Amino acid sequence: MNAEIIAVGSEMLTPDRVDTNSLFLTDQLNQMGVEVVAKHVIGDDRERLTTAIRRALEASGFVLISGGLGPTEDDVTRDAVAAALEREQFFHAGISAGIEDRFLRMKRVMPEINKRQAMVIEGAEILSNDRGTAPGQWIAANGNRVVVILPGPPHELKSMFTRECEPRLRKLVPPLAIRIQVFRISGMSESDLDQTISPIYKKYGNPATTVLAHNGDLQVHLRARCSTEAEANALLKEVGDQIDAALGEKIYSRNADPLEVITGRKLVAAGATLAVAESATGGGLAERITTVPGSSAWFAGGFVTYQRRLKTALLGVPEELLASHGAVSSETAAAMATGARERTGATWAVSITGNAGPSTDGDEAPVGSVYIGIAGPDGVETFHRIWPSSDRPRVRAFAAQMALDMLNRKLSQ
Amino acid sequence: MNAEIIAVGSEMLTPDRVDTNSLFLTDQLNQMGVEVVAKHVIGDDRERLTTAIRRALEASGFVLISGGLGPTEDDVTRDAVAAALEREQFFHAGISAGIEDRFLRMKRVMPEINKRQAMVIEGAEILSNDRGTAPGQWIAANGNRVVVILPGPPHELKSMFTRECEPRLRKLVPPLAIRIQVFRISGMSESDLDQTISPIYKKYGNPATTVLAHNGDLQVHLRARCSTEAEANALLKEVGDQIDAALGEKIYSRNADPLEVITGRKLVAAGATLAVAESATGGGLAERITTVPGSSAWFAGGFVTYQRRLKTALLGVPEELLASHGAVSSETAAAMATGARERTGATWAVSITGNAGPSTDGDEAPVGSVYIGIAGPDGVETFHRIWPSSDRPRVRAFAAQMALDMLNRKLSQ
Repeated sequence: MNAEIIAVGSEMLTPDRVDTNSLFLTDQLNQMGVEVVAKHVIGDDRERLTTAIRRALEASGFVLISGGLGPTEDDVTRDAVAAALEREQFFHAGISAGIEDRFLRMKRVMPEINKRQAMVIEGAEILSNDRGTAPGQWIAANGNRVVVILPGPPHELKSMFTRECEPRLRKLVPPLAIRIQVFRISGMSESDLDQTISPIYKKYGNPATTVLAHNGDLQVHLRARCSTEAEANALLKEVGDQIDAALGEKIYSRNADPLEVITGRKLVAAGATLAVAESATGGGLAERITTVPGSSAWFAGGFVTYQRRLKTALLGVPEELLASHGAVSSETAAAMATGARERTGATWAVSITGNAGPSTDGDEAPVGSVYIGIAGPDGVETFHRIWPSSDRPRVRAFAAQMALDMLNRKLSQ
Repeated sequence: MNAEIIAVGSEMLTPDRVDTNSLFLTDQLNQMGVEVVAKHVIGDDRERLTTAIRRALEASGFVLISGGLGPTEDDVTRDAVAAALEREQFFHAGISAGIEDRFLRMKRVMPEINKRQAMVIEGAEILSNDRGTAPGQWIAANGNRVVVILPGPPHELKSMFTRECEPRLRKLVPPLAIRIQVFRISGMSESDLDQTISPIYKKYGNPATTVLAHNGDLQVHLRARCSTEAEANALLKEVGDQIDAALGEKIYSRNADPLEVITGRKLVAAGATLAVAESATGGGLAERITTVPGSSAWFAGGFVTYQRRLKTALLGVPEELLASHGAVSSETAAAMATGARERTGATWAVSITGNAGPSTDGDEAPVGSVYIGIAGPDGVETFHRIWPSSDRPRVRAFAAQMALDMLNRKLSQ
């Protein structure tokens, strides 16, 4: 079964607000094997909402609407659903009494307008709200279709969905086993990745494959939906094995763990520690590493030698070397890594020096040019990469990703 | 004129991803007086997307579509727009050559599939992409309607919209003077802020007021929309003066500049420099400071002393002090700041030590407990704060915010 989600509220059409209810609802629906095929945000406009509901019902069997159930004229959801289904609404004295009670418990009198919240659409099942005044409604429509109205406040919606919708929905959908495998990949472009694996995943509608890219980090998600867990696992293995064979060592994680976790695990296994010396990334690599709880077991710490003179003062990079090769150079990267390793006593040290832009400074290294140094028990190695026409935040993120990737590969040798 | 925004991509129909491009687009459109009346997220499904585009065009004069312009079969936006408008597409040799060039500059060969990105819809104006391969398209349709296709990656979309769409759009909409004032506030809670200023802004429908909170940083946005700039400025001044009077020194910025920019400017004006010594934030404060282009003029660099022994080795914090007071203590924060100042020769040094969680370690400092040290020409001062029941990323972000806030206040004295 397919679902569409409609979030109602003009405030979610401003530059500062997103609808997050749909993330919770999508998670819940997916777990029952229901796919969300479209999401919509509609303002407090009765006509527009009526049209949107009618169209969603034409395309999908299950339409969830959140918000617009308050007591004011702006709250148009009940009216729009009634109009879309061409049904009447009637006043439900029991609901009204319940809302009145709720106000009394807060030692207040129910304002007259709250009676609007007791209007129920013909044929609806009432969904109780244990966190607020507006009840929800579950309405069976023609052709096995269902419209559900839920309140907008997330804590009301979540409680109502879990208590009232999930059990009803489970009766409508066949039981389904969903299994997910995540590969994480580094050191290739998104289009190279897709070109390599699309001949594999295109052969399969199930599992569904998604390729995600973020700051040089790539992910492939496979999601198998079968009637049994064993089938789903077998399907994941069938497709996963082919992707594994096609990508080989480009895959750094087969269980969704990020690079900093994978790298940390290898260091711990080797009884080794890590230090960093950062210039262009300004602490971003250390910051990323220390997002991992417990990283102090393998991450010693490091240096942010942002001004050139600190590369000499804190890391012992010779002034002559900086003068002759420049701060953005293979030689400086090597000296930074070596200095950081010596001064911290860590087993490994990674350095990053580069020009993240927006303008070239005295060194005249081109914007986007980054050198990475890795010093270890067997000496020091450097890597160079240019990301032209990338902006400052991306060059910094790419550089940190590449540094971790290079270290991780080194640790795998 | 009304606009609808369609975000394309199956990944935005998962429980983990929201479309954020529409927030930027809404902001830009609103500034030109264009209202966004609906937003949609559609998966990588050609038929469904074609229908969604056709319907949006029936209801609204301006339809913006983001994403689905990649080189793969999944990228269906070009095809769907062509189908919705019943137009042909043709191969544009110039665009293809440009994409090939871009690959060459990265020393790579353009994969054959990238040629798909050079397909152009009949009658489209091409929108150049200075951050990626896929060009956008601006297509005038019947009845003064416009469809715009933009790439999905936010940095590509933003650059393209600003350079290519905004000027075209300005010719279509009547001029409207929109003036925005942003106050940035630190050192109070969101609810205290709202309680203080809501009696002021509630009196006005124009300017529209929004209160935003992010990791301890608060912003108040006033947006005045008038037919002349003078009117809008007068309105902003009327409301802004009252907010200014109510908040006083809690306001650290009246022009949207973030704390790291404000602080940097004060340091430059004083001919002073800054160093940092971080433990709990693991480089996050240095990373945040160095997001500012040109920050090397005032930011020397610093230390990430994540393991306890590095606090001694790199910053000279006496082992006895660590043993008697613990790594998370006022004494350690003071010694870290003093050590960083001495070893870098910077005018000021800021230190952060704390327990960001999720669990307490040997030191037994409670989760969320953070000490900040500020060493300067007149000695060293420390501050302590506990953020109970905050998670690790939030404690780290709050701590970096508080450290900058304290330094900024110190520099204002």
